Amino acid sequence: MGQPQQTDRPEADKPPLRVGMVGYAFMGTAHSQGWRTVGRVFDLPRRPVLAALCGRDATAVRAAADRHGWASAETDWRALIARDDIDLVDICTPGDSHAEIALAALAAGKHVLCEKPLANTVAEAEAMARAAEAAYERGQVAMVGFNYRRVPATALARRMVAEGRLGALRHVRVTYLQDWLVDPQFPLTWRLRKEIAGSGSLGDLGAHIVDLAQHLAGEDLAGVSALTETFVRERPLPVGATSGLSAVSAVGTGQVTVDDAALFTGRFASGALASFEATRYATGRKNALRIELNGEHGSLAFDLERLNELYYHDGGEPGARAGFRRILVTEPDHPYLDAWWPPGHGLGYEHTFVHQARDLVHAVAEGSRPEPSFADGLQVQRVLAAVEESAEKNSVYTPVAA
Amino acid sequence: MGQPQQTDRPEADKPPLRVGMVGYAFMGTAHSQGWRTVGRVFDLPRRPVLAALCGRDATAVRAAADRHGWASAETDWRALIARDDIDLVDICTPGDSHAEIALAALAAGKHVLCEKPLANTVAEAEAMARAAEAAYERGQVAMVGFNYRRVPATALARRMVAEGRLGALRHVRVTYLQDWLVDPQFPLTWRLRKEIAGSGSLGDLGAHIVDLAQHLAGEDLAGVSALTETFVRERPLPVGATSGLSAVSAVGTGQVTVDDAALFTGRFASGALASFEATRYATGRKNALRIELNGEHGSLAFDLERLNELYYHDGGEPGARAGFRRILVTEPDHPYLDAWWPPGHGLGYEHTFVHQARDLVHAVAEGSRPEPSFADGLQVQRVLAAVEESAEKNSVYTPVAA
Amino acid sequence: MGQPQQTDRPEADKPPLRVGMVGYAFMGTAHSQGWRTVGRVFDLPRRPVLAALCGRDATAVRAAADRHGWASAETDWRALIARDDIDLVDICTPGDSHAEIALAALAAGKHVLCEKPLANTVAEAEAMARAAEAAYERGQVAMVGFNYRRVPATALARRMVAEGRLGALRHVRVTYLQDWLVDPQFPLTWRLRKEIAGSGSLGDLGAHIVDLAQHLAGEDLAGVSALTETFVRERPLPVGATSGLSAVSAVGTGQVTVDDAALFTGRFASGALASFEATRYATGRKNALRIELNGEHGSLAFDLERLNELYYHDGGEPGARAGFRRILVTEPDHPYLDAWWPPGHGLGYEHTFVHQARDLVHAVAEGSRPEPSFADGLQVQRVLAAVEESAEKNSVYTPVAA
Amino acid sequence: MGQPQQTDRPEADKPPLRVGMVGYAFMGTAHSQGWRTVGRVFDLPRRPVLAALCGRDATAVRAAADRHGWASAETDWRALIARDDIDLVDICTPGDSHAEIALAALAAGKHVLCEKPLANTVAEAEAMARAAEAAYERGQVAMVGFNYRRVPATALARRMVAEGRLGALRHVRVTYLQDWLVDPQFPLTWRLRKEIAGSGSLGDLGAHIVDLAQHLAGEDLAGVSALTETFVRERPLPVGATSGLSAVSAVGTGQVTVDDAALFTGRFASGALASFEATRYATGRKNALRIELNGEHGSLAFDLERLNELYYHDGGEPGARAGFRRILVTEPDHPYLDAWWPPGHGLGYEHTFVHQARDLVHAVAEGSRPEPSFADGLQVQRVLAAVEESAEKNSVYTPVAA
Repeated sequence: MGQPQQTDRPEADKPPLRVGMVGYAFMGTAHSQGWRTVGRVFDLPRRPVLAALCGRDATAVRAAADRHGWASAETDWRALIARDDIDLVDICTPGDSHAEIALAALAAGKHVLCEKPLANTVAEAEAMARAAEAAYERGQVAMVGFNYRRVPATALARRMVAEGRLGALRHVRVTYLQDWLVDPQFPLTWRLRKEIAGSGSLGDLGAHIVDLAQHLAGEDLAGVSALTETFVRERPLPVGATSGLSAVSAVGTGQVTVDDAALFTGRFASGALASFEATRYATGRKNALRIELNGEHGSLAFDLERLNELYYHDGGEPGARAGFRRILVTEPDHPYLDAWWPPGHGLGYEHTFVHQARDLVHAVAEGSRPEPSFADGLQVQRVLAAVEESAEKNSVYTPVAA
Repeated sequence: MGQPQQTDRPEADKPPLRVGMVGYAFMGTAHSQGWRTVGRVFDLPRRPVLAALCGRDATAVRAAADRHGWASAETDWRALIARDDIDLVDICTPGDSHAEIALAALAAGKHVLCEKPLANTVAEAEAMARAAEAAYERGQVAMVGFNYRRVPATALARRMVAEGRLGALRHVRVTYLQDWLVDPQFPLTWRLRKEIAGSGSLGDLGAHIVDLAQHLAGEDLAGVSALTETFVRERPLPVGATSGLSAVSAVGTGQVTVDDAALFTGRFASGALASFEATRYATGRKNALRIELNGEHGSLAFDLERLNELYYHDGGEPGARAGFRRILVTEPDHPYLDAWWPPGHGLGYEHTFVHQARDLVHAVAEGSRPEPSFADGLQVQRVLAAVEESAEKNSVYTPVAA
Repeated sequence: MGQPQQTDRPEADKPPLRVGMVGYAFMGTAHSQGWRTVGRVFDLPRRPVLAALCGRDATAVRAAADRHGWASAETDWRALIARDDIDLVDICTPGDSHAEIALAALAAGKHVLCEKPLANTVAEAEAMARAAEAAYERGQVAMVGFNYRRVPATALARRMVAEGRLGALRHVRVTYLQDWLVDPQFPLTWRLRKEIAGSGSLGDLGAHIVDLAQHLAGEDLAGVSALTETFVRERPLPVGATSGLSAVSAVGTGQVTVDDAALFTGRFASGALASFEATRYATGRKNALRIELNGEHGSLAFDLERLNELYYHDGGEPGARAGFRRILVTEPDHPYLDAWWPPGHGLGYEHTFVHQARDLVHAVAEGSRPEPSFADGLQVQRVLAAVEESAEKNSVYTPVAA
Repeated sequence: MGQPQQTDRPEADKPPLRVGMVGYAFMGTAHSQGWRTVGRVFDLPRRPVLAALCGRDATAVRAAADRHGWASAETDWRALIARDDIDLVDICTPGDSHAEIALAALAAGKHVLCEKPLANTVAEAEAMARAAEAAYERGQVAMVGFNYRRVPATALARRMVAEGRLGALRHVRVTYLQDWLVDPQFPLTWRLRKEIAGSGSLGDLGAHIVDLAQHLAGEDLAGVSALTETFVRERPLPVGATSGLSAVSAVGTGQVTVDDAALFTGRFASGALASFEATRYATGRKNALRIELNGEHGSLAFDLERLNELYYHDGGEPGARAGFRRILVTEPDHPYLDAWWPPGHGLGYEHTFVHQARDLVHAVAEGSRPEPSFADGLQVQRVLAAVEESAEKNSVYTPVAA
């Protein structure tokens, strides 16, 4: 029988980046996949280590840590932050706890990755952005999790806009359409309660498309005019689900306190016009984050339901041969793609988290400003606040606070 | 040599419907094709006769009449209306002359088909709707030319909504995207001058999508919030084109006095939300009139650039087999299609004018109320007026006048 | 009341081209639409006149002539040909009568347009091609009706191949998929009887795709290997339909004597590979004539169900921005389009017959060789014969006769 | 500071399945990702352990093991097989070594996963299938890596066919189009050399589509008629690449000894017709594995370039509302999807390897016959042999050996 040869583990020689993650629901699962995979695919300056997972239920968090590959578990995020064998805190909780955890983590000298939306209020987001800026001076990095910047197709779109291929921008139109609330019997989960989620489709879907639109356009929204609506105002309480609900109330109904849909138009600083729609009532649309940019020299279009494709119209082509072309964004010279599969072998949703982890590890190792920063997250929050203000004030055009 | 047999012309036994048309540019050409073809394809109660074509330039109108198959030509629309061998006046001029011609034609006892937008002002449109209503009592029919109701796919969509397949409506999103003004050197044609065109993309494209959205939804908009923009405010004057331009001014530039783009959101009477975008600056989009309706039980989507297709999501399907289906609207039990070709043999843009003529001939013969009526055209005009008012008042939500 | 001005009819000054058409079913209707419309849209050297329509049933042919706008009717095609006020004979009958009528018409000095397939046998087609060549020497023109060459998108494809944009051709793959025979209770119409139709999907659909593939490739097939199949071999007789069926047999069943589907591969003269599939059993496909050409420098793809679109991949583009682009073939510099509507306003199936009429009128007026000629039709027939021979001989590769 | 809680590792209580993998190029990387991820996502009866990676170059294999997460490295596959801490051997080498390794692994009592094609010859494949059958009697499992059965959309298609939704099958048409050989300067890699790869596009791409077509149809091909071609017969030798090439030959050229493209038609046992095309010369097509099945009651269509979508036409729908629907295969009741993300959050290419690992682990744990088995792999090999035989014999129809 041959002698097994041990690998000499050059990966092991890289300095570790020890991650502690808070929350392990949908986002926690996705981030776990990102952290587990990134060092296997990309050649990184530091070696991510899934050091600790944190959640309130001891049994559940242990099982989750085991399932997702985290080396240890914690039940108190303060304890997690206090550990000196944690370099980076990854916050995957609902928006109401982002500020408290992130501020504490930054104060404790940790790098931070915080899921979107950055916070439930502008005031919280401001405090977070200030803290992140101060921490950056101390060598800490803080990033907000707008993962849709890291779809190769959107990253390619950003690159093409930055190269000037669109010229002066005229229009940006964006929708984020889902349909999981169409059934009026769908229960009143935490995402439908303002005190936890902050807002409804606006904070959940709207935050994504505001960030993506501004990122791709390369400029900020100057003001907005908005309509919001709650189509189904009362829903059954979830059975045995969220903490604090008694058995009695579990069979009753409760008020939906967030928006079901948000529509807004706006102007970019340059004068380009924008339209946004976020809804969970678009029957048959599952994850239709669609964005189109029209510029003087060209146009780009993207649909998250076909995330390996980017559509590009080159306005400089002779008219007889011009048209929107479908770029299959799987070539080695597309963003992130040199590390993956041969052309035509597409990626999926979860790869955005791998790419996010990749870029964050580089930012940490190089001490560079991460994108999107907490300041970017704050700016998005200000847009959302202007949307809410406009919706309350009869849709009047409302400037975004600077 | 065989004796040629003469046809016994049962068509000839049908009472004629003698049409006089004013204007013979783009719309006049399309209407001519409609009038010439409709009796060859559909079995009609009356036989359309292309009796007279009217335009200001005697030589040009004669050539056009000859080209398009009109039996005679007129240079004065008042003369046309005064002819007692004309049953129906078809108005294909720019919007600034619609009211005067239509009112005179109705007063002279003619049936009227008037291109959209019905008028350049609400006041004119009100007068026209009143006159049409009075004329209807006298047996005259007046229709406004929102031809996009007559694409088989949109007619099928209307039928499916009316059958209740969508249930409670949640969202209607509509765009009408063109790109012929992207080039800042495109000249200042009449469509860019408010005194002739009334408005820009709003009246040209917006009128179409407001009508179509309301028609498909089966209900009216209650109010709107709007943004409009003129991206390029000065353009070269057209060379030697429109009357009254001197040689000196022909080499200069002039002010664009209409909107280049109009974005608005709104609420339907039922509470459904709507978003609209009309623009001539969407690089690469040639005629992208796109409409999607999301209801509690299903969704429909249409794109004029693929006018033989309607997309339908049946929310009642089991989730594992549900999806937007592409209905190729070329089957004999689709609207208008039993008169045309076998399945899969698509129609084109111009067929909307054949179908419009068909429905109008039936309304005339049967004395039924035509759809869309002048009252429908007035209602669209009121929506456009609310859009303009909102845009002037900082996008504040503006009710549509009843 | 104004004096009506008569048009001075410059069209009337053009020499007429007096058409006599035989047959008025599906193809006759489509050709009628073409002849009626062509002079209204295109500026032609001669003025088409719908002089006479010919069919066996006197009452029916008179009604059809009246409906479609033909000035007179005939019940005997020999009588039609004998008339000296007919310049061109347009043959829209089933394939079994093409040769006899066309040969007689050519002998009588007429120009001829003959529907495809040119004939039911190679021998007939050879005689027709010889007669056409001889007639051409006498100034007569003969064209075969492969109308799919006249879709603007396929005409653009041909232009692009001829410009060298694809380079050395590697692959041509073509399907023509319909589904109207899926139901085994569909009756035994003439298209399913070999003695009338000659063959089944092969002559009906296969003839179209063989012609189109060779036309776009710019070269001929050298040989083929084929499979054919008849899935449903017995079908109900049509009720009261085709002449000669007794009342007794009308309620029985009959044998399908043609192929339901034909698949074949082949080699072009240049060495490029081709694959073909023609079927009436592709459930859900209504008119899916799809062709894709792959060359060393680029590719083209077309689908008749979306006939206003051509897809083009330019292999010379940088990989990061390359992709199949959707050319909306509605621009003024696309083939035939300068005579039609603004960009984005699509055409339909019937326009191919307008374009066919246009090109034929030009060929007649200019004395030029029409494309596709009877020689082209013969060559297609030889390919179909090789397909049948290969299918009979265990699919062995069978050269196409030269 | 809180006491870190250790997870109690219920995963650790599961019996391990210790994998030893041979080869670590493209397929090895993909399989590594599958093995690493599967236990994190699916609840498995055994816990996969990445025990050892094997390759000839000691330094390279160590680095690869480290990169991909394998616990140890081997340089001799015989040594790997001899280890008693290896339960399953995963063979990711070129086809010329499959038989030897697989036979030895089975003889050593290992479970085996073997990449496709199963072997380079039918004789080898027969020996492998016999050995696998004998080993199955001893409790060993052997699977061949036709991973495209494990795209959720193809698995759903298989389920729908098995449910009888298509009825009697009429047509299966399949292409696998790539374009990486279009450039004649692309070097002569091992995939272009018959002695290593066995065949060209046929074994590489054709094997995939033959397996997938038969799997989806639920029946085997009875016979085929084929054409193959090598478009570019001489190519530059790769520089400094594959072992055994001297510096001198590295600057020369060599013969391409495999097919560049293979086209074949065939008949299924039931009489359904099939067409296949495999090529690396379809400019602009990157990974276009497209399959369509037409049955008496419905149709299905799939394209690997849009792998999260399945198109379904239900022939039982009323004609007015029928059409191909796009099923976004991301719902919890779609195959494999309950373990992944919410609806609309698509998967990628690599997930097929996770699913393959999942199904294999279940087969091992449950002692069930794996699908596809070596017998399935042998049957595909027999089809490919019939294709080669037909291509050599002038395309004559060649039965597939039973």
